[in-house]
Amino acid sequence: MLASGDVRGNLLKEDLPTPALCVDLDALEGNIATMAAYARAQGRALRPHGKSHKCSAIARLTLAAGAVGACSAKLSEAEAFAAGGVESILVTTPMVGRHRVERAVRLATRLPGLILVVDHAQNADDLNAAAATAGVSLNVAIDLNVTNRTGVTPGPDAVALAEHLTRLPHLSFQGIQAYAGHTAHVVGFAERAAASHQAMAPAIATRRALEAKGIPCPWLSGASTGTYNIDGEMDGVTELQPGSYLFMDLDYNRIGSRNSPLYDDFANSLTVLSTVYSMPGREQAILDAGLKAFATDTPYPPVVRGIPGALYSFAGDEHARLDVRRASLPVSLGDRLELVIPHCDPTVNLYDRFFAIRGEQVEALWRIDARGMST
Amino acid sequence: MLASGDVRGNLLKEDLPTPALCVDLDALEGNIATMAAYARAQGRALRPHGKSHKCSAIARLTLAAGAVGACSAKLSEAEAFAAGGVESILVTTPMVGRHRVERAVRLATRLPGLILVVDHAQNADDLNAAAATAGVSLNVAIDLNVTNRTGVTPGPDAVALAEHLTRLPHLSFQGIQAYAGHTAHVVGFAERAAASHQAMAPAIATRRALEAKGIPCPWLSGASTGTYNIDGEMDGVTELQPGSYLFMDLDYNRIGSRNSPLYDDFANSLTVLSTVYSMPGREQAILDAGLKAFATDTPYPPVVRGIPGALYSFAGDEHARLDVRRASLPVSLGDRLELVIPHCDPTVNLYDRFFAIRGEQVEALWRIDARGMST
Repeated sequence: MLASGDVRGNLLKEDLPTPALCVDLDALEGNIATMAAYARAQGRALRPHGKSHKCSAIARLTLAAGAVGACSAKLSEAEAFAAGGVESILVTTPMVGRHRVERAVRLATRLPGLILVVDHAQNADDLNAAAATAGVSLNVAIDLNVTNRTGVTPGPDAVALAEHLTRLPHLSFQGIQAYAGHTAHVVGFAERAAASHQAMAPAIATRRALEAKGIPCPWLSGASTGTYNIDGEMDGVTELQPGSYLFMDLDYNRIGSRNSPLYDDFANSLTVLSTVYSMPGREQAILDAGLKAFATDTPYPPVVRGIPGALYSFAGDEHARLDVRRASLPVSLGDRLELVIPHCDPTVNLYDRFFAIRGEQVEALWRIDARGMST
Repeated sequence: MLASGDVRGNLLKEDLPTPALCVDLDALEGNIATMAAYARAQGRALRPHGKSHKCSAIARLTLAAGAVGACSAKLSEAEAFAAGGVESILVTTPMVGRHRVERAVRLATRLPGLILVVDHAQNADDLNAAAATAGVSLNVAIDLNVTNRTGVTPGPDAVALAEHLTRLPHLSFQGIQAYAGHTAHVVGFAERAAASHQAMAPAIATRRALEAKGIPCPWLSGASTGTYNIDGEMDGVTELQPGSYLFMDLDYNRIGSRNSPLYDDFANSLTVLSTVYSMPGREQAILDAGLKAFATDTPYPPVVRGIPGALYSFAGDEHARLDVRRASLPVSLGDRLELVIPHCDPTVNLYDRFFAIRGEQVEALWRIDARGMST
């Protein structure tokens, strides 16, 4: 078995058992630098969303490049990142239910940089009571519903909730989270910008309404990989929380960027390495990476890197079928192919480790320490 | 954190953090007993496929009920089951590539009951050479292509491969694997029976052809949860390898059984427990179980147990939207709902543990020790 850690110089990509989740370090480092430079140039804080990578080692790379902290989708994910040395974490979903409330307070006692979101007064009361018992102050933000999912309705309801938060002695009101998930994958930059402006306007207005009431609201967090350079240029958005830009995927490539029909602001740094382990006839190859190797929530399958015309289709939990009739290169039993991923976030959640690759060398193994952390 | 092991008497289902993968013990035990009784009555060996549960604890329950061993889809899965005390394991996919060949031989040295499948003469030679170096004899079967996936073509090609295997001194020829995956989900019992008879006839003929040539072939393994009581009544099939019957899922429920349009030979023992953690308005509830809590390869979503009319749809990696406008019961913030799973196998692969439930009691935590074992 391969041990975790730095293994420079003694392991090659061709040595890896497959399927293997491989991250190209040059591409990843380029993506990290590009987003960091953008946020810096715009004067916005960058808090990359860790639900994409679920890996403290990658969170630390983004911090080293200037990120102010990390986002996590769930509390257990935040616990993993905290254990991995991340000191400021925004948990982007509500902490409802006894377990979540109690554990969130426990985490806050050892992580002063924890920020929770709230979209319901009762939940705020529950958090306040638990914080009182623990003798701790909780940083909270209102989760604003700008995408028909979680969150309080912008406007008067949100102002009322913020006022409620400011009255609870064990909660410290920080500002607003407004994540407009439905805009992230709108195809076409102009269309996406229009959708995001429409979604975010009520959030920016809510921030102004709070400040008009004398409730300081220094912080408004939003933006996805699709809207980073839209929300990042809105007056009133102070922090960006994209995640997928680290790896990119086919789902984002298709949405188009500011100047190109292919969204190529960031490179596809993540692939699944797979082996041809059966060749029943000349027309198809069977690969060892199927439904358990990729998330399948997109309508399009993985793409074989470097062999145009070789068409992947799922063939069960453990298998894929590669139609090689029009493949630009011959494909043979035992060949190792790299597959570009349709949707990275839930695909990463299938693996226990990243193999971090430079050229053909495996430079490091990074444990995906928040994998499966969904509670 | 919850520790693994027997926790009888001090943990309730309502205490579990969500999303939680819950297996109902009465239902699971019933499914195990039903399939075991069927195989016994038909005089067939039962070797349940471990790719469904990926859990040594469940493999051991099937062994205690009379199974002859387990199947595993991949070598790393077999390694986990072997470590978990399973002594006879059929690995149902080919061991192609240096890593797989070397590791398979290493596993065989400590697990005499390991059986490998081969569909290519070169791969047989590679296994034979590695076995010679290790001084071990490998049990091998031919993997027969009865489903347009892996495997050697039935008939002369298969006979030639079997003859080749018998000539290699470090391989011990066991028989034939013929898994007709494409027939498993054919809707309608008569249609499914027709498809399976068509798929399996060449396998049974190949077995006869081998024996006519004087090559003993005492073993022919096939059948899925969809075809267990079709293949299990075919003259020539000696062993059944279903897996999904342990849990059942919506994907199998819809195919119909011998006497019913709903396939109910086995009970839905597996569910995901989820919490309502946001209620933006009265028409919908937001659940904490999304794309990372379920495999999404089927066209239909999870179903809420006990609340007809509450309609689940995915709302991102971590969220689901429940349309409660026509729900038969009211749904409120903090409610805990049980969701029946569309496709169990790849869903199980998302979780680290089963919570084994009897009534409302959590009787045990079972580690999914082969989770993520895809190499």
